[in-house]
Amino acid sequence: MTSPPLRGFAQTEFEARTERAQRMMRTLEVDALLLTTEPHVRYFSGFLTQFWQSPTRPWFLLLPLRGKPIAVIPTIGVAGMQQTWLDDIRSWSSPQPEDDGISLLLSTIRELPRRFGRLGMTLGAESHLRMPANDYRLLGTELADMELVDCAKLMLNLCSIKSAAEVEKIRYVCELASDSFNALPGFARTGQSEREILCSMRIDLLQRGADHTPYIVSASGKDGYGDIIMGPGDRPLEEGDVLIIDTGTVYDGYFCDFDRNYAFGFASDKTRKAYHTVFESTEAGLAAARPGATTTDVWQAMWSILEAGGARGNDVGRMGHGLGAQLTEWPSLTANDNTALAPGMVITLEPGMEFEAGKLMVHEENILITDDGADLLSKRAAAELTVIV
Amino acid sequence: MTSPPLRGFAQTEFEARTERAQRMMRTLEVDALLLTTEPHVRYFSGFLTQFWQSPTRPWFLLLPLRGKPIAVIPTIGVAGMQQTWLDDIRSWSSPQPEDDGISLLLSTIRELPRRFGRLGMTLGAESHLRMPANDYRLLGTELADMELVDCAKLMLNLCSIKSAAEVEKIRYVCELASDSFNALPGFARTGQSEREILCSMRIDLLQRGADHTPYIVSASGKDGYGDIIMGPGDRPLEEGDVLIIDTGTVYDGYFCDFDRNYAFGFASDKTRKAYHTVFESTEAGLAAARPGATTTDVWQAMWSILEAGGARGNDVGRMGHGLGAQLTEWPSLTANDNTALAPGMVITLEPGMEFEAGKLMVHEENILITDDGADLLSKRAAAELTVIV
Repeated sequence: MTSPPLRGFAQTEFEARTERAQRMMRTLEVDALLLTTEPHVRYFSGFLTQFWQSPTRPWFLLLPLRGKPIAVIPTIGVAGMQQTWLDDIRSWSSPQPEDDGISLLLSTIRELPRRFGRLGMTLGAESHLRMPANDYRLLGTELADMELVDCAKLMLNLCSIKSAAEVEKIRYVCELASDSFNALPGFARTGQSEREILCSMRIDLLQRGADHTPYIVSASGKDGYGDIIMGPGDRPLEEGDVLIIDTGTVYDGYFCDFDRNYAFGFASDKTRKAYHTVFESTEAGLAAARPGATTTDVWQAMWSILEAGGARGNDVGRMGHGLGAQLTEWPSLTANDNTALAPGMVITLEPGMEFEAGKLMVHEENILITDDGADLLSKRAAAELTVIV
Repeated sequence: MTSPPLRGFAQTEFEARTERAQRMMRTLEVDALLLTTEPHVRYFSGFLTQFWQSPTRPWFLLLPLRGKPIAVIPTIGVAGMQQTWLDDIRSWSSPQPEDDGISLLLSTIRELPRRFGRLGMTLGAESHLRMPANDYRLLGTELADMELVDCAKLMLNLCSIKSAAEVEKIRYVCELASDSFNALPGFARTGQSEREILCSMRIDLLQRGADHTPYIVSASGKDGYGDIIMGPGDRPLEEGDVLIIDTGTVYDGYFCDFDRNYAFGFASDKTRKAYHTVFESTEAGLAAARPGATTTDVWQAMWSILEAGGARGNDVGRMGHGLGAQLTEWPSLTANDNTALAPGMVITLEPGMEFEAGKLMVHEENILITDDGADLLSKRAAAELTVIV
């Protein structure tokens, strides 16, 4: 068993992230980046708190072209932000619905050096602004002499390449979840509901050292399941059922995201065959995932096995994705994504298929892209479907 | 011990929510509401999934002036949405960065009957759009013949009044957390870290029947603590420390949100006095919280006790807030919020003060506003600071 990685990061980690971002900002000709979401504020500051569960107050981080990020945050966060490497922390007493930080944010932006007259924000695909849309419009009006420029792709690119310290945290939580999945036949049995089994697994993950499990879903049914995002259900599992559990468990702010399948009592031949096909599809993905190959190459390698194995389709919309500070990150493994894989990317391989009407089989592993190809972070699923008797 | 409330809601619950919203929409003269966030989509549909942890795909719900809501969602969610009371479910294969549902959303909006030529969206205070800002701008351009109208306050108002079935879920999870807090002296001891104690409490909450604990933070220090949103820490607790734990634990999609304080070994006189002052402040809040009184009346009742007790200030920005499908909801108990309390509102009373430099004492209870005043949902904190020896 690996010992838990140190919590937090050395200051050099944040300096390196900041410098990489500032290089990209120069290329895009933006004077500053304005960030509003939890993963983005955390990425540059190290500010890690569960308080984002409260949707009431906006939080802002400004990254200028030179120097450290500047926090513009509610007073409730100042004591915490002072523990980070940031020096410039500005605050207002929030909630204050008439002006919830927006005038303070504007005055802070106006103080920044201007070279390009352009402010970067996350406006494009796979982004949202965690601030009132009216305040976003107000920024545009009040900063009439600045252009608001989309930097969503900059942030997707930046966060997609993980540092060694980030990988260590993801690898650790993948190991915890792998061990918990492997232990599951010892605490799950026919007659229990998905909800009971998932509750046991949540406890098992905590006892192994996970911080928390924001995501653990399941589905089950005779020979296969019809959905992979809605569970857990309350029906007692019966002999012949197949159960899938998919978990995004967290250590120090970093996620794993993979699933495992179990049969109860026995597994039918068609289910074993579907499991085998999807297992082989993952093998093809593992072989294809290397620097220079694209997300679409890996998708194609996996899909061709599924297609040959009788796949009727797949409603998930992709067969894998980035992973790290969020359960799912850019890029997506799809038929037309075509993102080049690069060393340092952490992604999931998630082949899945409908093998007969309403019956799905989905597998998932987490990997790091290295110069040598795929480095498994999750402990590889069993080659044959595990049967719990 | 109360038995767990039934999961989900009767269809009449969603019909009633829809009709209340449609009445408010008529007053605001909007033809439809476009909603994008988890609590709002769930409010009208009952769609309850942990899958919102994945930030990649946008999800849309349209509520027309008449009839049921319409879902415009990624294909991965269709099987789940079909289990709700909705009939009209439209989907696209997502992720699809060039057009992630926006053209499907636009064509759906264009099909809706028009009376006012106005589309409601959540644009104002305490709201955000969980969709790319560029797609929000595109809506404005493409729907040039419609006005986009802020309906953030409509949603805040609507969700603030809980049904009996919603209250039952909140009351249940408050009871679970109360029992866990009361059991804590049996599993926490000097020498453990906050992290170890919170891990034990997470497990205890699961064993009592909670679904999960998205929020559990702590802080500690000699005689008091300096922050209430950053923990847990890893320092072993020492004799003379005071520990606060604040949890937002969930049953069937509904939160509790309250805290408890514990002293380890002994409690100093000044800490006992601060505890007593904040306890009395809560008592004043409980007495003041009744229909017709405002959030500011309750704030004033609590603050006057704290001020008389030597409060130096409070960086939290408010002393309580709404509660339900989210950890914190509108309204806020502040000096100038002035929202009239009404039967059916579930709020927290959260008086807190800095009683000496860097030392805080914060209490919290959850209440339902009834015709008769405050109905405690959490089991009232002990009148004297609990000492763990």
